[in-house]
Amino acid sequence: MPQDREDAFAWIDAQRERRDRAGLVRRLSPRPADSPLLDLASNDYLGLARHPEVTAAAAAAAHRWGAGSTGSRLVTGSTELHTTLERELAEFCGFEAALVFSSGYAANLAAVSALSGRDALVVSDADNHASLIDGCRLSRAEIAVVPHADPDAVRKALGAAEADAGETTVGDAGKARRRALVVSDAVFSVDGDAAPLAALAGASRRYGAALVVDEAHGLGVLGEGGRGAVHEAGLAGAPDVVVTATLSKSLGSQGGAVLGPARVIEHLVNSARTFIFDTGLNPAAVGAALASLRLLRREPERAARVRTVAMGLYGRLTAAGPAAVRPDASVVSVRAPSPEKAVRWAADCRAAGLMVGCFRPPSVPDGVSRLRLTARADLTEEQVEAAVDVIVRTAPTA
Amino acid sequence: MPQDREDAFAWIDAQRERRDRAGLVRRLSPRPADSPLLDLASNDYLGLARHPEVTAAAAAAAHRWGAGSTGSRLVTGSTELHTTLERELAEFCGFEAALVFSSGYAANLAAVSALSGRDALVVSDADNHASLIDGCRLSRAEIAVVPHADPDAVRKALGAAEADAGETTVGDAGKARRRALVVSDAVFSVDGDAAPLAALAGASRRYGAALVVDEAHGLGVLGEGGRGAVHEAGLAGAPDVVVTATLSKSLGSQGGAVLGPARVIEHLVNSARTFIFDTGLNPAAVGAALASLRLLRREPERAARVRTVAMGLYGRLTAAGPAAVRPDASVVSVRAPSPEKAVRWAADCRAAGLMVGCFRPPSVPDGVSRLRLTARADLTEEQVEAAVDVIVRTAPTA
Ligand SMILES: Cc1ncc(COP(=O)(O)O)c(C=O)c1O
Ligand SMILES: Cc1ncc(COP(=O)(O)O)c(C=O)c1O
Repeated sequence: MPQDREDAFAWIDAQRERRDRAGLVRRLSPRPADSPLLDLASNDYLGLARHPEVTAAAAAAAHRWGAGSTGSRLVTGSTELHTTLERELAEFCGFEAALVFSSGYAANLAAVSALSGRDALVVSDADNHASLIDGCRLSRAEIAVVPHADPDAVRKALGAAEADAGETTVGDAGKARRRALVVSDAVFSVDGDAAPLAALAGASRRYGAALVVDEAHGLGVLGEGGRGAVHEAGLAGAPDVVVTATLSKSLGSQGGAVLGPARVIEHLVNSARTFIFDTGLNPAAVGAALASLRLLRREPERAARVRTVAMGLYGRLTAAGPAAVRPDASVVSVRAPSPEKAVRWAADCRAAGLMVGCFRPPSVPDGVSRLRLTARADLTEEQVEAAVDVIVRTAPTA
Repeated sequence: MPQDREDAFAWIDAQRERRDRAGLVRRLSPRPADSPLLDLASNDYLGLARHPEVTAAAAAAAHRWGAGSTGSRLVTGSTELHTTLERELAEFCGFEAALVFSSGYAANLAAVSALSGRDALVVSDADNHASLIDGCRLSRAEIAVVPHADPDAVRKALGAAEADAGETTVGDAGKARRRALVVSDAVFSVDGDAAPLAALAGASRRYGAALVVDEAHGLGVLGEGGRGAVHEAGLAGAPDVVVTATLSKSLGSQGGAVLGPARVIEHLVNSARTFIFDTGLNPAAVGAALASLRLLRREPERAARVRTVAMGLYGRLTAAGPAAVRPDASVVSVRAPSPEKAVRWAADCRAAGLMVGCFRPPSVPDGVSRLRLTARADLTEEQVEAAVDVIVRTAPTA
């Protein structure tokens, strides 16, 4: 037997060397419970992950309902706490029904794959989140990736598919109908820009397509009291619109949800693989998300506050030099000259007491490395000022 | 514009009617915190989900570390608690390193897709769990689905691929090498039978393929003190073996993990999409899983106990009539004559105070509906007796 057979993972070393040379190696840096760093890196936009009401709710839920949900949502994994969260989340965002998943990732896999299928067309924004892209891949549908934030391109992709179908098939009703889905982030995770939702909805409707919007970075930040970008666009509760959300960002917990018409939710219960074959979300996470949601209802000003902080951060930053992208929500993106310089920049910030996100390939749609700064509702003016000072001071030369 | 364009989800109603006619509609039945039902349906095999030490650890972690991890594991989502769990889990199972994911589902997607790839061959057992299958789909590799628990078929699939490659390509070393992965559940979730791991490892090694084993239903149940089927087979820590596990069954929490050589784990940190683009597991779930693991180390007899309970359940049941599959771990599967009769049987059990799992298409690999009973380490002889009595009393006539 040849010698090399003994090393099934030899290829991993080769990939590692390539990554090393390109300055793209990632390492985990676990944080202590009481990190002294100023956090401009997390997605805890409303500052609720450590809010005493929220952590107390997590603890109470673990005590009352157990540490795990103990099974698939269809067997033993649905508690009345899950149902309460689903009802209040749907109501808050203006949808008929909601379904909670173990993560936002799982919710996106479910929504895209279970609402399309082998004969369907999915039109997907080029900058969509990895979980939406993986949902496309799992769907086995035909995927049309369209340029970023381009409703005209969406219209064209839907129109072209309809023309094709018209030529090749004649359905029962004398004309071809094909299932179609338009999929977009509400707020794009890397650059923090918002999707043109009204135009996307118009394009979708014109061709009888459904629209799936991922509110991961919209919920808690945009719309009235943080009801999200879809609510702000007047699309909440529309019969052809489905929203996905995560409980892990503004709501400071973990988990995901799909919101939409009751029949869509019922369809997911019956067919979404990441719902049927996954253990239900753990009670502590359900309880925490519910507590955050209730807190946000009571203190709707948190949503406005995070937007103000983001704009303040952006304003101060661009006034001082670094070119940032104008934020539509809570994410402020700053480009770096190279992956190595981005890593160095983030490390220098860290050494100066500031934690920022550092995004490099393959986590960026356009291959451009950047710092990713996130605003939080509980940041003070002084903290923003101090952060900008560090970022400017440590900025690399191009 | 034609009228039907207004209903983008009309197809859902048609699917619903078909499901209805086939007796395959699923509904959620959320449970109260203090359900009086005897539970033979959950995957809480060691009875730890509500163990006071475990729920207290969940609560303490939420208080100390926050309700959510607040970001991707690569940004702010790694706490020292995650690292501790990873270290102790790897050590317990006998592997060099471990990586924690937000779910077992996500861990499986990661392991299969990041360890194969477009040019690879993945050989997958026909009865593998949905998450392994979805991992195959996401990998874009060539997938050879082989008959259930059939090492000869695995050998043939690997051999055929090698012969093909040999004919068509000549590599640097004068012969073609192709990345190959053999993937199997350790214990199959529906019938509870164990995979022929030693033979699978032999077949994989013969062709230089890596072996990925999903210990979802093996960890905490099989092997010395619950170290799993891979440990029992003497394969723990092997350079070409990777294990995936879930924290949501024997460990009574939520989450998943991949265990293997350090270079494999480092590769996942750098390339697994469900690791990089997903929020880290919430601290309460991490803390609970860690507490369960420590409890299991301290009380290794729990693993043996659940196997004894499962065999007792199986013995009593078959003695009384219903044909069950002899359990290799903690799952006892009982076939039902039809989906409708399975649903009715489970409902009758429930009415008599017993909760059992009811698996129907599409959740069963062979299309045969069954009751799925699970043993728990904390079930008493009397409870098993009472459960069998109910199951036999409510059994449908074929
Ligand atoms: C746009 C977007 N969608 C979905 C997700 C996944 O959500 P979760 O982390 O809750 O799985 C994320 C980030 O994690 C995201 O940025
Ligand atoms: C064999 C197997 N693998 C993986 C999973 C997924 O694990 P989790 O529920 O923790 O996501 C399950 C069940 O849920 C399973 O039965």
